[in-house]
Amino acid sequence: MSLKGNLLYAQSGGPSSVINSSAYGVIDQASHEEKIGSVYVADNGIQGIIDGQINTLTHEEMTELSLLLQTPGAAFGSCRHQLADFEKDASEFEKIKDVFQKNNIRYFLYNGGNDSMDTVDKLSKYFKKVGFECFVLGIPKTIDNDLEVTDHTPGYGSAAKYIATVFSEVACDASCYPQGRINIVEIMGRDTGWLTAASSLARLTGYGPDLIYVPEVPFSREKFVRDAQKVYARKERCFVAVSEGIKDKYGAFIAESGKKDAFGHLQLGGVAAYLSSLFAETGIKTRSIELNLPQRAAAHLASKTDIDEAVQVGREAVNNVVKELTGFMVTIVRTSIKPYLVGYGLTPVENVAGKIKYMPDLFLNKEEADVSEVFFNYALPLIQGERPYKSDKGLVKFFSRS
Amino acid sequence: MSLKGNLLYAQSGGPSSVINSSAYGVIDQASHEEKIGSVYVADNGIQGIIDGQINTLTHEEMTELSLLLQTPGAAFGSCRHQLADFEKDASEFEKIKDVFQKNNIRYFLYNGGNDSMDTVDKLSKYFKKVGFECFVLGIPKTIDNDLEVTDHTPGYGSAAKYIATVFSEVACDASCYPQGRINIVEIMGRDTGWLTAASSLARLTGYGPDLIYVPEVPFSREKFVRDAQKVYARKERCFVAVSEGIKDKYGAFIAESGKKDAFGHLQLGGVAAYLSSLFAETGIKTRSIELNLPQRAAAHLASKTDIDEAVQVGREAVNNVVKELTGFMVTIVRTSIKPYLVGYGLTPVENVAGKIKYMPDLFLNKEEADVSEVFFNYALPLIQGERPYKSDKGLVKFFSRS
Repeated sequence: MSLKGNLLYAQSGGPSSVINSSAYGVIDQASHEEKIGSVYVADNGIQGIIDGQINTLTHEEMTELSLLLQTPGAAFGSCRHQLADFEKDASEFEKIKDVFQKNNIRYFLYNGGNDSMDTVDKLSKYFKKVGFECFVLGIPKTIDNDLEVTDHTPGYGSAAKYIATVFSEVACDASCYPQGRINIVEIMGRDTGWLTAASSLARLTGYGPDLIYVPEVPFSREKFVRDAQKVYARKERCFVAVSEGIKDKYGAFIAESGKKDAFGHLQLGGVAAYLSSLFAETGIKTRSIELNLPQRAAAHLASKTDIDEAVQVGREAVNNVVKELTGFMVTIVRTSIKPYLVGYGLTPVENVAGKIKYMPDLFLNKEEADVSEVFFNYALPLIQGERPYKSDKGLVKFFSRS
Repeated sequence: MSLKGNLLYAQSGGPSSVINSSAYGVIDQASHEEKIGSVYVADNGIQGIIDGQINTLTHEEMTELSLLLQTPGAAFGSCRHQLADFEKDASEFEKIKDVFQKNNIRYFLYNGGNDSMDTVDKLSKYFKKVGFECFVLGIPKTIDNDLEVTDHTPGYGSAAKYIATVFSEVACDASCYPQGRINIVEIMGRDTGWLTAASSLARLTGYGPDLIYVPEVPFSREKFVRDAQKVYARKERCFVAVSEGIKDKYGAFIAESGKKDAFGHLQLGGVAAYLSSLFAETGIKTRSIELNLPQRAAAHLASKTDIDEAVQVGREAVNNVVKELTGFMVTIVRTSIKPYLVGYGLTPVENVAGKIKYMPDLFLNKEEADVSEVFFNYALPLIQGERPYKSDKGLVKFFSRS
């Protein structure tokens, strides 16, 4: 019997444009790592693992592997399943251990955001407790950029590039009439303003936001209407970037649908339409634009910097898990500001699990409903470069499971 | 005094991703045409001309001219102004004639959709009537693809490519969970389904719409809910593409805001959100996505075929107007189906002005809420090719007036 253990990779949470680039990094690196036997992937994250849905890649899939670098979504399926506290209910943990034992899974890499890191944390602790020799590391992923410790998250740069590009295109388009509107662009971000702040990069084209509203700064309807009207009076148009998760000074969301997701988070939506309605009496025309899912799915416009880093965090996870490290998440460390350089590190996953990294005050200009130059310089390197994609009959060619 | 006349170019109506490519074609061709003295552009279309706002391009603008090929919006400004009937009120016509005389404008090219062709029609007839020797041609432009006579319109191919690409990316993303939603994607198109139909091209990636609803087919809420539930029952998800302008069997819009634009057209919006609400009682989760302005502004994803044709209709307009033709619009003629080849023609502008080209029955599959293979084969060539764009610090570099 081989002494080699197998490696299992799974994806979790909302996808990003580059989560599959991390999958590529993991699979390519693990295939060449001599301590690793076979590379398994799970269908639909931890939920699939509990149900025993893990398998190796086919020969055909392996030959098309580089298509992962341009495929949106979670190529191996995702889930939003949260494990229980194993001190109270270990039943799912036992099922996972059974699946791992049966398939000789010695290394497990889980790719996701702060909720997914909770799974890495619990699983690595459970395996230690029961003395099961399986090493578990987390690979960061989220367009929200709200993970602690890491300089930024894979996925953020591409979402930022999409937001800045589309904002500039829309603002350029909407500037063509002598008299414009108040244009309100709704951007993802329930808790943090990282994505909305990225709209500021559009100013490089000459067509950026006049006002930026993020959840970190309490939102006043009155001040907003006043500020937007002031811009409109001066320019005959106004461009507003607003996070879906803006809150008033009491912490209540400005727009919420009342529904909750599997983790108990309130579902948001419609803040741009709501803010537009505040101008109904003014006679000023408005337009509300929700950037919606393309923010996390527009693989055709991914940042090359982001793709490259997403691949590398996957490779780093493989390199570290074979050293028998467990309970860590790979981090990106900015090792030089100018020129922009990064290295990769590890952080105990409990530093990240269930926590949220808010925009620091240094990155904001609260008085002016704006971000600071410090933020601008932080974010700009992350959107650099484009990767020419393979197309098929005019459309991006996706990786698909055979 | 030179015998050469000057040429004036102006833009009108809602922009497309490639209207500025036509501007490039006009300006480049006219600069090399010996019958033409100077090339003028108007600010904000016919409205700017009435106000005397026309000027030549600066040396700097001329050196950056190729950036027009990647600039969204209307680089020279647009308007939605409709000229009166000159038999009743010729005052604006006289102003235009004065501006033209003062600047020796002998050739006028107007770039727009069916409302703009009304301006070409009236102006060419007025100039003939008063014996003013100025030749007026129309250059087609509209993402809507609803102009008569021409095989398709410049702008449609790029919008179709954007819609198909983003639809596939969103559907790929939304397919990552074991249990999906009914996803309703709202696409532009007040009167016609050309844009919504283009979502069918996304099927090439494996992630296309299950159901397609266009204004040409009377919409039944009951049948829609039944059809979507049927798909959902089979696939645990459903992707719907729907035109903003769908109407019931009495011709009433399913979703309208009650506001009217300058031409008296009703303003639409919110049909996806409305259709989502029809599933409130079913327990099925829904998501509504409005593709919104990026459909006509996403120059970063323009179709190379469309850019090339948009340039060429501009060149053709110059070549024909110097032959002293007036009152025509340039058309695109498909001269071969396989391989796809086009030529360029002319049509009297009254064949186009104020008229709407609906999708023919041959392009639809009404029973199945779908388009036909004939449509698919018609549209596919129009989205072919990508033009690598010049970027500056990670964003598309725009042409800007100096």
